[in-house]
Amino acid sequence: MDPTTAGAPTRGYTATKDDLQKRLRRIEGQVRGLQRMVDSDTYCIDVLTQVAAVTKALQGVALGLLDDHMRHCVTEAVRAGEGEDGGDDKVAEAMGAVGRLLRS
Amino acid sequence: MDPTTAGAPTRGYTATKDDLQKRLRRIEGQVRGLQRMVDSDTYCIDVLTQVAAVTKALQGVALGLLDDHMRHCVTEAVRAGEGEDGGDDKVAEAMGAVGRLLRS
Amino acid sequence: MDPTTAGAPTRGYTATKDDLQKRLRRIEGQVRGLQRMVDSDTYCIDVLTQVAAVTKALQGVALGLLDDHMRHCVTEAVRAGEGEDGGDDKVAEAMGAVGRLLRS
Amino acid sequence: MDPTTAGAPTRGYTATKDDLQKRLRRIEGQVRGLQRMVDSDTYCIDVLTQVAAVTKALQGVALGLLDDHMRHCVTEAVRAGEGEDGGDDKVAEAMGAVGRLLRS
Repeated sequence: MDPTTAGAPTRGYTATKDDLQKRLRRIEGQVRGLQRMVDSDTYCIDVLTQVAAVTKALQGVALGLLDDHMRHCVTEAVRAGEGEDGGDDKVAEAMGAVGRLLRS
Repeated sequence: MDPTTAGAPTRGYTATKDDLQKRLRRIEGQVRGLQRMVDSDTYCIDVLTQVAAVTKALQGVALGLLDDHMRHCVTEAVRAGEGEDGGDDKVAEAMGAVGRLLRS
Repeated sequence: MDPTTAGAPTRGYTATKDDLQKRLRRIEGQVRGLQRMVDSDTYCIDVLTQVAAVTKALQGVALGLLDDHMRHCVTEAVRAGEGEDGGDDKVAEAMGAVGRLLRS
Repeated sequence: MDPTTAGAPTRGYTATKDDLQKRLRRIEGQVRGLQRMVDSDTYCIDVLTQVAAVTKALQGVALGLLDDHMRHCVTEAVRAGEGEDGGDDKVAEAMGAVGRLLRS
């Protein structure tokens, strides 16, 4: 067993991890792009348009993570009848995350 | 004339540029933090909570930029009675930006 | 069999239907309140504050519906191993709804 | 002086009042439509899709109101150099409204 991965838990996003990291690196690049725009005194509205684009990209990451989570973690908890309530606490937890996204 | 600022246009955020850059660097750090969370297989819901926090920080940047823009660029256009419509095109442009933020 | 309910399908919100209808009637009242505010020339910002309150109430309804849907319809589809993909289409459908809410 | 309008203050939306009321009545009709959907046990996801549509319609009303407000109330305050700060308090107030919309 490879000691570096021994015990690495399986997450909802394990299968899509490379794609997820690629998206996050692109978002990091977009945020650095915003810094350069401000540095070179880009017109406010153009900076704002780019801020909206980065926000949209982050929402895309959130939807992808939530989809992975529902498809794996929640589904498995339900199938396993996990906990006293057969997976309902996992659903409640996921709904809490949706609520935070809607309000952010 | 100071050669370092020669020709640099004045933007709505000129007076708050340092604060704006500090916020953007903090957001960049948060996005790198997300990459580390994914790298170390952090639980999906905890990653999602952090994505919501970064989104909120970006919305804060957007509101700050919009406030600066309204307070300077739009206000000055209105005072100068700029354009045929006395600054109305600047207001329309700013409202377009608000619409993109609401939809992002 | 009670002929008035014969054939009425069970929905995720069946158990919370009264509460849901009460919320929707309250929102209807809030929208009529907005019409009265406009009719009596209420200050724009106060109308906008109330529009934001109604939007928030609608988001609350959406979160409640989604929670009911996840807790019943999706959970049951997963338990029944419904469809070729064992409930995954139900999850995908719910994620589509979350996406529409985030973008609205 | 027409006694029916005597003292009616001019609001940002005065010129677009009929259109605004028409939109609000349509939204009221959509909310009643939601009640009928729930009453007839419509599938959760279809109810959610309609909730997202009503939310979007409300956001449209908010953007319209904000546009009217900026175009008239704020612009006039700036032109009049109103208050100690020449209209800046009006801008701050409008930005507060944008913030509430973004968070709703």
